[in-house]
Amino acid sequence: MAEEVLFFGTWWSPFSRRVEMALKLKGIEYKYIEEDLTNKSAALLKYNPVHKKIPVLVHNGKPVAESLVIIEYIDETWKHHPILPKDPYERANARFWAKFIDEKCFPAIWKSCFGEEKEREKAVEEASELLKFLENELKEKRSFGGETIGLVDIAANVIGFWVGVFEETTGVELLTKEKFPKLSNWTNEYVSNSFIKENLPPRDKLIAYFRNRFGIPNASK
Amino acid sequence: MAEEVLFFGTWWSPFSRRVEMALKLKGIEYKYIEEDLTNKSAALLKYNPVHKKIPVLVHNGKPVAESLVIIEYIDETWKHHPILPKDPYERANARFWAKFIDEKCFPAIWKSCFGEEKEREKAVEEASELLKFLENELKEKRSFGGETIGLVDIAANVIGFWVGVFEETTGVELLTKEKFPKLSNWTNEYVSNSFIKENLPPRDKLIAYFRNRFGIPNASK
Repeated sequence: MAEEVLFFGTWWSPFSRRVEMALKLKGIEYKYIEEDLTNKSAALLKYNPVHKKIPVLVHNGKPVAESLVIIEYIDETWKHHPILPKDPYERANARFWAKFIDEKCFPAIWKSCFGEEKEREKAVEEASELLKFLENELKEKRSFGGETIGLVDIAANVIGFWVGVFEETTGVELLTKEKFPKLSNWTNEYVSNSFIKENLPPRDKLIAYFRNRFGIPNASK
Repeated sequence: MAEEVLFFGTWWSPFSRRVEMALKLKGIEYKYIEEDLTNKSAALLKYNPVHKKIPVLVHNGKPVAESLVIIEYIDETWKHHPILPKDPYERANARFWAKFIDEKCFPAIWKSCFGEEKEREKAVEEASELLKFLENELKEKRSFGGETIGLVDIAANVIGFWVGVFEETTGVELLTKEKFPKLSNWTNEYVSNSFIKENLPPRDKLIAYFRNRFGIPNASK
């Protein structure tokens, strides 16, 4: 059967990019539909009536929403080049950390950079506490997935790439080499990896986008 | 190898009970450790240093935290009597709805009943909107898992049992038969199922617990 894979995303979104990374790791051909989140398409609202959000994957007419759910779907549907480990305990660990990034780290990072001014300092402290757990989890591994890019590495794109963009956009410091030597190394490797680099949005364009979105002047640093 | 399964939980917590339900569905023997959340044990803090929360499963010395992550771990480790469906698309759907219950429904339900007084009315409306999605998802199925108890049914214990308890505790109306005929039917079946009934906390004790915790007088209804 000819596969039809549609993907609804937004260029600047880490959640959108992580699904694209999973599709590209597997070498799955797909049709990308860029959504304007200020004017969502009828198709997006039809395929994700619950959250009305990107990312949404539509495989042979059937929609899947929520980036981590989509990535597991991709991994279970196209089994070559596995994204999750095979061992149940390692799988649970990967799910735990991916969930931790989404539910704890990302909101704290966002608030640190774009939250209300008076809340920022506290949010930076909180983000710092949370990132320490990831620093420890890296141990001596090259990536969260060990030697290869796994679920946590894909989910951690927000730390590997977006945090640097947010820092440059706002002047907030989160991921210093002194405080997070392992995470900083991982970040450097992450953005140097040619496969990953190809699938990230252009850094300058992203900084300009966030500056414009939050009305941040150029010389904020 | 002799299996050692420890489970750290709290008797009144739906998140704790859902993991126990998964263990019991599989017929796995485990040692239950009741945690006093006002005075957490050193073992709990050691096994879940990130969230410092129940539920935690410790299987042969290795800890797993977060109820949905634990349930998937249980399902992948002891494969008999599967909790998640086999088909990747149905698995993705189950994960989507379980996540929806945890991230959207539960916070809105909690706020409706125990939130600040001025926010409650809006929270009831929000919870109502969210529960409509579950009402639609049930379609003509007997349970979310079809004919058997699946991941979503286990995750939805908060709706199948706790919502009724919260309603009786606080006098807030959430799940009326008129507005949610299918969900109400499912709820009735849920608490009538002898296996489920055996593994829920005593209703009166639970109501007394929440009344006491939030200082709600007896005649609130």
